[in-house]
Amino acid sequence: MKRDSLAQRHCSIARAGAELGDGWTLVILREVLLRNRRFDGLQEQTGMSPRSLTLRLKAMVDDGILERVAYSETPKRYEYCLTEKGLDLWPVLIVLKQWGDKWCGPWAEDTIPMGLTHAAHGHELSVQLSCAECGEPVTPFDVETHLSAPMVAEREAMADAHARRLKKAKSA
Amino acid sequence: MKRDSLAQRHCSIARAGAELGDGWTLVILREVLLRNRRFDGLQEQTGMSPRSLTLRLKAMVDDGILERVAYSETPKRYEYCLTEKGLDLWPVLIVLKQWGDKWCGPWAEDTIPMGLTHAAHGHELSVQLSCAECGEPVTPFDVETHLSAPMVAEREAMADAHARRLKKAKSA
Repeated sequence: MKRDSLAQRHCSIARAGAELGDGWTLVILREVLLRNRRFDGLQEQTGMSPRSLTLRLKAMVDDGILERVAYSETPKRYEYCLTEKGLDLWPVLIVLKQWGDKWCGPWAEDTIPMGLTHAAHGHELSVQLSCAECGEPVTPFDVETHLSAPMVAEREAMADAHARRLKKAKSA
Repeated sequence: MKRDSLAQRHCSIARAGAELGDGWTLVILREVLLRNRRFDGLQEQTGMSPRSLTLRLKAMVDDGILERVAYSETPKRYEYCLTEKGLDLWPVLIVLKQWGDKWCGPWAEDTIPMGLTHAAHGHELSVQLSCAECGEPVTPFDVETHLSAPMVAEREAMADAHARRLKKAKSA
């Protein structure tokens, strides 16, 4: 099962999952959002080996999530900044954080690791999903899903391929 | 870099990332939300090998995201259903889907793979994050972050460990 095989599916969740890779990408995004943008600082706070971090940052740059921006000319030094695509992952991180706050404890001192404040109003921020058109909160029970024709076609092709594999295994 | 080392961090994003693992868990969650809950159907639509799928489902059950529910007594057969913790991942998947719709194309026939309808109102659903207290949409620029004391302590410990590693490498 290669990362690539998810990246080629006709499904936004599969492709997004393939790009995010695993938890390390999320932790790097957390650090960059906390304004820790340089290699040494990222190595320090992720605990990754230089080689793993280099490879991961390269993949994130190749995927257009981060960009290298020079912060010093002599010697030439770079930091990693979020692109528009990368900043668009902020809601993913916040929703994931809120899920982790609730389900991934226990937390030392019974405190969630990172609190958020809704700055303009000064209160603690807990987020919910709402409909961008009518503004109402949405839950799984408010939503109907409809698959596009290419996604249906891919699902049928996968069902056929699976049936062929089963038949072959039976006759072997 | 083991999955475990993220699972032990004092950070909801790191631990949530460790539990979600990689894109395959997300694709299994997509299928279960589409009511494809049995082993054979999951194998068909994820394309995973029986062994990979078995291990991943076991991890998801161990993590409390899925539960095995018998749907037949003789022969005993099970399907995989979302727990409350698993259903709480719905917002993560929706936000990730929306990010993928925008950034992970191109899509065949210029159609996003899966559309959502806000059922009560009949219009297409595009979601946004809003504040659960005041209902206003939130962006990264509306939010202040404050780290808890245990998270600050962990960050300081990681900085110290990193400095010690650098010193050791220099003197070697």
